[in-house]
Amino acid sequence: MTTHSLAECQALDQQDPLRSLRELFQLPEGVIYLDGNSLGILPKATPARVAQAVTQEWGTDLIKSWNTAGWFQLPLQVGNKIARLIGAKDDEVVAADSTSINLFKVLSAAISIAKADHPQKNIVLSERTNFPTDLYIAEALCKERGYQLKLVEAEELHSALQQDVAVLMLTHVNYRTGAMLNMKDMTAAAHAVGALSVWDLAHSAGAVPVDLNGAHADFAVGCGYKYLNGGPGAPAFVWVNPKHTDRFWQPLTGWWGHAAPFEFTPDYQPAAGITRYQCGTQPILSLTALDTGLDAFLEAENLGGMKALRQKSLALTGLFMQLVQSQLQGHGFGIATPAQDDLRGSQVSLTRSEGAYAIVQALIARGVIGDFRAGDGQHHPDILRFGLTPLYVGFADVWHAVRHIKEVMDTQEWQQARFSQKNAVT
Amino acid sequence: MTTHSLAECQALDQQDPLRSLRELFQLPEGVIYLDGNSLGILPKATPARVAQAVTQEWGTDLIKSWNTAGWFQLPLQVGNKIARLIGAKDDEVVAADSTSINLFKVLSAAISIAKADHPQKNIVLSERTNFPTDLYIAEALCKERGYQLKLVEAEELHSALQQDVAVLMLTHVNYRTGAMLNMKDMTAAAHAVGALSVWDLAHSAGAVPVDLNGAHADFAVGCGYKYLNGGPGAPAFVWVNPKHTDRFWQPLTGWWGHAAPFEFTPDYQPAAGITRYQCGTQPILSLTALDTGLDAFLEAENLGGMKALRQKSLALTGLFMQLVQSQLQGHGFGIATPAQDDLRGSQVSLTRSEGAYAIVQALIARGVIGDFRAGDGQHHPDILRFGLTPLYVGFADVWHAVRHIKEVMDTQEWQQARFSQKNAVT
Repeated sequence: MTTHSLAECQALDQQDPLRSLRELFQLPEGVIYLDGNSLGILPKATPARVAQAVTQEWGTDLIKSWNTAGWFQLPLQVGNKIARLIGAKDDEVVAADSTSINLFKVLSAAISIAKADHPQKNIVLSERTNFPTDLYIAEALCKERGYQLKLVEAEELHSALQQDVAVLMLTHVNYRTGAMLNMKDMTAAAHAVGALSVWDLAHSAGAVPVDLNGAHADFAVGCGYKYLNGGPGAPAFVWVNPKHTDRFWQPLTGWWGHAAPFEFTPDYQPAAGITRYQCGTQPILSLTALDTGLDAFLEAENLGGMKALRQKSLALTGLFMQLVQSQLQGHGFGIATPAQDDLRGSQVSLTRSEGAYAIVQALIARGVIGDFRAGDGQHHPDILRFGLTPLYVGFADVWHAVRHIKEVMDTQEWQQARFSQKNAVT
Repeated sequence: MTTHSLAECQALDQQDPLRSLRELFQLPEGVIYLDGNSLGILPKATPARVAQAVTQEWGTDLIKSWNTAGWFQLPLQVGNKIARLIGAKDDEVVAADSTSINLFKVLSAAISIAKADHPQKNIVLSERTNFPTDLYIAEALCKERGYQLKLVEAEELHSALQQDVAVLMLTHVNYRTGAMLNMKDMTAAAHAVGALSVWDLAHSAGAVPVDLNGAHADFAVGCGYKYLNGGPGAPAFVWVNPKHTDRFWQPLTGWWGHAAPFEFTPDYQPAAGITRYQCGTQPILSLTALDTGLDAFLEAENLGGMKALRQKSLALTGLFMQLVQSQLQGHGFGIATPAQDDLRGSQVSLTRSEGAYAIVQALIARGVIGDFRAGDGQHHPDILRFGLTPLYVGFADVWHAVRHIKEVMDTQEWQQARFSQKNAVT
């Protein structure tokens, strides 16, 4: 691709077969939103759907809605929509709780299975820059169960996959760099040493094609409020390979995972299948918003689905990196995201030895919304993150975003004191 | 009280100092709603507040709202409103996740503390008719930690509180019968044998005065969608006695419980105080509805608060039981709810040797919404449950409800076949 001019980017937008999907979203005025990897944009259909859930289903129909509005089935109904995006089948996915809690469920189950099958193994292996909450959950669980959490760099994963590894726990697309692991190869490598694979799809579900069954993965969790556009803190999801589902139940044994929740028996009998990965009553209003958010992907199915979305995503991230290289020379940026197509997700991450936070703030002040992720001051640099959501980001958006970065650097705007004050959440 | 006639009940409504609170709720037309103990009614303020969260906070302000709309602080902000209802102080309560998951957190912490202080104890004691999800969570956790879950009848609790009990886990108001335990006495009895107390306030927060600090309780959880009117599946809450909070952290060690969640360090450092009882990102839309639902209690504070609500609640449940006795003789009903004021919560539960389910269905068809809870066919009978929420139920409502029960029985309406078919959820 040699596209550089605004006119050429606008032409790409006009030719984009997915361009109509942008109309499904309430794009905020005057904003180039490159943070759909953190919080997806509001779908236009969502306000009315949530209002209906509030005023009609709750307000008028009250408890009847557990049946008539399908509240009780909503976790599975939403799960079935997500299943289509991640290579799972109907009734293999449930939407519930948070990503952290779902990870606790599947990692508990994975450890229990590993303990039964390979009692001598004692390592849970993960990546040092895996999303911290995943590492926190694993750290506590390993301590409780007598396992050791071993953290290595991405390039060390293969050599660390030894016979002592019980569970390989990875995030498919790295939240910092956007680097994507090969799920099929990594899972095969895990299986080759008798380890189970647990995948966090937070930055891949809805962003890149995922084929859990095709990769013979063992467990997966993911996030509802990033690329799935479910709204702030939307419930997460959980998938378990059917060969494992009925073998063990997870420790959060609440009544929604019971075989007969309304029999109110005092002893726990897990439901068959993925239902046992539910725990307590789910937040129906937030779950309804997630249900509606997923409908954009059903629309996308008529336009080529995840394959077409992936093609556009790669074109967007490719364009972004190309423009960074051609327009921002001499401004000290590095690109942390892999240039090779099959090694990256749907974001571009820039590095800079100083000022990353202030530059992101200066861009936000101009209406270009990305975000900042702190490095560790050693191996892992500070990151300027730009998520390129193919459902609603266009090629001209990318062009303007890089133009703004250039202007912020050319004018030294980012060095204004007001951009260096850190807020609680960025 | 000798009130029996409709006119007398209407007079009580006119004299009710809390009557104006009813105007805060969207009472469904043609319905007498006696199921606020299952799902509270929609507050009139909620639709606009949720719409604002959807369209403005999410739709327009997007990630900025983590700061500007206070999303990140919402679990504590909502927790502080709940704290006023349960005898807790500011920053002692957090609203998050589900009741089942919060119970898992506090029961884990309680067992860990018990294990450190009294390693020889091995019993978690509870009531056989405690809400099943509480028992399921405890059953799995006990098995995992090498403890035994011992279940007894309510009247056997005192004699079962022996030196081997590590944790006494109780629901304050029984979901079936509405019987209320004396939290202060039971906690003192637990402490006398060196046991910790864990309280589920699902049927008491917002329904009866609760004084966790006054009772020297150790841990508590509760529900957001019953008497707190937070909407279907609203997030639950968790309280920990400050003397225990910093001693241990719970196993769901997600990033929202981290001391510095946005430092993204790979190792877990629990936040000080109740914040460490958070785990992952919370469902903001559902949490916003709960935040709004609680405002009715702030209004009630000007009218006497929980003390006045309790007085009205006792009058309502007293009237209901009195009318059952005077109007329904010969129809085979028993009353499972204690007649003594300080032994009951805010519901009345009837028993009948047959037809309980069909009678509830016949009442629902008439617009009198209560619910059915199955017995065990032995010691615990089927239950017809009627929740009397003092925020919005009136005395005339109670009179009409009993009139409808009488008509359903007099006409044998309940014996129609259509009322005996069980739905998935009732």
